[in-house]
Amino acid sequence: MRTPVAPVTIQRRDGGSVSSIDDIVVTEEPLEIRLGHGPELDRKEVRLSVTMRTPGHDEELALGFLFTEGIITDAAHVLRVAYCENVKKEERGNVVRAELHPSIDLDPAKWQRNFYTTSSCGVCGKSSIDAVRTQCTVPLGKAPKLDHSIITSLPDRMREAQTVFRHTGGIHAAALFNANGELLILREDVGRHNAVDKVIGALLVPRTNQQPTTNNHILLVSGRAGFELVQKCVMAGIPAMAAVGAPSSLAVQMAKDSGLLLIGFLRGDRFNVYSGEL
Amino acid sequence: MRTPVAPVTIQRRDGGSVSSIDDIVVTEEPLEIRLGHGPELDRKEVRLSVTMRTPGHDEELALGFLFTEGIITDAAHVLRVAYCENVKKEERGNVVRAELHPSIDLDPAKWQRNFYTTSSCGVCGKSSIDAVRTQCTVPLGKAPKLDHSIITSLPDRMREAQTVFRHTGGIHAAALFNANGELLILREDVGRHNAVDKVIGALLVPRTNQQPTTNNHILLVSGRAGFELVQKCVMAGIPAMAAVGAPSSLAVQMAKDSGLLLIGFLRGDRFNVYSGEL
Repeated sequence: MRTPVAPVTIQRRDGGSVSSIDDIVVTEEPLEIRLGHGPELDRKEVRLSVTMRTPGHDEELALGFLFTEGIITDAAHVLRVAYCENVKKEERGNVVRAELHPSIDLDPAKWQRNFYTTSSCGVCGKSSIDAVRTQCTVPLGKAPKLDHSIITSLPDRMREAQTVFRHTGGIHAAALFNANGELLILREDVGRHNAVDKVIGALLVPRTNQQPTTNNHILLVSGRAGFELVQKCVMAGIPAMAAVGAPSSLAVQMAKDSGLLLIGFLRGDRFNVYSGEL
Repeated sequence: MRTPVAPVTIQRRDGGSVSSIDDIVVTEEPLEIRLGHGPELDRKEVRLSVTMRTPGHDEELALGFLFTEGIITDAAHVLRVAYCENVKKEERGNVVRAELHPSIDLDPAKWQRNFYTTSSCGVCGKSSIDAVRTQCTVPLGKAPKLDHSIITSLPDRMREAQTVFRHTGGIHAAALFNANGELLILREDVGRHNAVDKVIGALLVPRTNQQPTTNNHILLVSGRAGFELVQKCVMAGIPAMAAVGAPSSLAVQMAKDSGLLLIGFLRGDRFNVYSGEL
């Protein structure tokens, strides 16, 4: 079993003082996602991607990644996610295989890592946004009514629940809240896109709904709001997103075009609204 | 000409007060890197990668990316980098083409986006590190002798030079200093890996040296120190790296295995040494 933190011995320097202490850091290891039909070792198995991630909730990471990349459009398209047994010993726990429903083609040409790498869609901000819109199957509802005091309480609520951050100070987080500010799902990862995929994957794991039910929710991310995170929010049908840091130009444009409520610089009693209305 | 910042109108909420103001955000746009021999429209042109980046220093970004990914091992392997003219109007300035020396094969199979995605290298931390070691052509010298007071002065020196950050508050930076703490190169980007690639590309741009001369330098990054950033530092032969934030487990392991001086949590008068000695 891989663990989310690892021990290190460090030298701490504080002004003139030097001390050697035992400390812990957040774990970073590669995760390979493979896709197939039927049993492991199926000849048509596809090696989809490798991402550097913090171990934990790997099934959710795989599900969320497949969903936000548009490879599946329904949780029922994945029958099972499991760690591969038939790998080298040192790779165990770093390779998962998603068994897809027979109706889903195993065609790597259809799965570009990023929407904007397809030659048809071009390489500019507008085409990146258009590509997300055509891939997106979950309608984005109206953002929930959120009180100022609830919004400003979200970072503290997330921070209090961040166990790995408390021990390492070095990890991103994504947290899903309802309109009353109640924390529903929190995930931490060295990659902020992984943290968001894990949250969205957690919505999919019961696989009882055809689509995640997210129309009354707001997603908070610990860092900046870049295009990729807004894209994932839109793909999952989450109507509101807040970031502790700044948004980028393309994140703002994507939010406006999609009707997403986008909040940035959420700190203390203040924040900025970049898209949508409270 | 693409610009590094873009105007937005936002609603600022501070406690009870609400105001509509003009603000600016950092620009995020895709950059496609193409490779070829000879003139543009060469049939053997290869579309290598698309990365979301902040416009500016795109030639350096392309050069640094090619070098840190091991596609070229010498600045002279790239004859020229230019924006492609033969693209849609809205894509102008977002597509660059690197003209490679005839001795460099245009073989996409050899250029995995990440070292650890090759099937031979496996999917675990150790194999990721081994893959970097075999690709690396620049020997990593001993880290320079650095005074405590010089190290702790680096974040303020970088921050003072960050023009885009000052206006947007939302961008990563990487800065190269010499052992006296003098700022040599600063680059800003929405992607922290891009900021590092731009710094390393800037070392390569004169193309007078076969390898960048970096043996007396330290690289400072604004965020956390993940594996990918340490990898780039090692590939470029920079013997010391400091991060304002935390390092990951694999970053520490890679630094130890390479003999890189790795400093984390560099804040105020304090920092931690995770690998190497001062």
